[in-house]
Amino acid sequence: MAPRTGRRPGDSGTREAILAAARESFGTAGFAGTTIRGVAGAAGVDPALVHHYFGSKQQLFAACLELPVDPEVLLPQLLAGGPDDVGQRVVRTFVGVWDAVPGQGPMLALLRSAVSDPRAADSLRDFLTGVVLGPLAAAAAPDRADLRAALMASQMVGLAVTRYVVHLEPVASASAGELASAIGPTLQRYLTGEL
Amino acid sequence: MAPRTGRRPGDSGTREAILAAARESFGTAGFAGTTIRGVAGAAGVDPALVHHYFGSKQQLFAACLELPVDPEVLLPQLLAGGPDDVGQRVVRTFVGVWDAVPGQGPMLALLRSAVSDPRAADSLRDFLTGVVLGPLAAAAAPDRADLRAALMASQMVGLAVTRYVVHLEPVASASAGELASAIGPTLQRYLTGEL
Repeated sequence: MAPRTGRRPGDSGTREAILAAARESFGTAGFAGTTIRGVAGAAGVDPALVHHYFGSKQQLFAACLELPVDPEVLLPQLLAGGPDDVGQRVVRTFVGVWDAVPGQGPMLALLRSAVSDPRAADSLRDFLTGVVLGPLAAAAAPDRADLRAALMASQMVGLAVTRYVVHLEPVASASAGELASAIGPTLQRYLTGEL
Repeated sequence: MAPRTGRRPGDSGTREAILAAARESFGTAGFAGTTIRGVAGAAGVDPALVHHYFGSKQQLFAACLELPVDPEVLLPQLLAGGPDDVGQRVVRTFVGVWDAVPGQGPMLALLRSAVSDPRAADSLRDFLTGVVLGPLAAAAAPDRADLRAALMASQMVGLAVTRYVVHLEPVASASAGELASAIGPTLQRYLTGEL
């Protein structure tokens, strides 16, 4: 007889069912069109259970992308230590997260889908502005936050494509620290500089 | 009887045959692995005829991408007026060129292919560093030219993805001038600044 683990039988199946319903919803309805209630309904569970397992909609999205960090923990970390050094922290953190996932996993898969599938492009857009960069801009520089988030996204998406897809040297082999030095000031200007 | 036009019958077919052979070679052997002589051989024509129709290998690549500008004319234009304003000119020119082509044509097609096909990724990489940004960096700032070209490429690729693929606002609807103001300083720093 297996030892008790404290988890009810079927927990893992429930979690997977919620994730599958969430991926389906984010893929077809986009981030904005997805609700915790709708995902719960599609998975046949109570909405409270979705919150219990995953937290917010942003955190559910991050779970679907198998992000190795929680965006709601990441944001205060990026802002900690004052606004003047956020640019380098953003670059160092993103590159660290991407490098940590073999093949860059579902994040690169979303990027690949986005260039051929308009619905995936909607999801990527919602992710870029909704999950980290948008809240970061809103918190650090409410003035023109939409433009600041979009400009930061343009640089970070381009960094992901050149480093992980096109393997353009020396960006492809540079360390996170080297990239933070070179590209951090760009993020910093987009976030807090004069535009 | 049709009037004489000064063009030999079959000129258009020859030009198309050269383009088809070039697309095949760039697609399978990449930019670096493609030679004018090889393209000529595959098209069954003399190499001099390839030069006659298209000029250099870079110009042949640009013709395959249906670029509405000649990169060998573009480069001196970008450098004209001194190095201090190149960043804004690069952004304004690229956005102008991309905007002028409905659906961004084969340029966006190359980007789409690159994220799923490693050989297309090789072509995109060769294009990014070989056709405009690499020569620009080599001419304006020989110190660390490879890094400068790759950093410029990372921002311009990201701008293309956010503006034309993901349609991220307000970058998607901004004018070329607005983007030049916001992103030009980034290109300028990557090209001539301290890294």
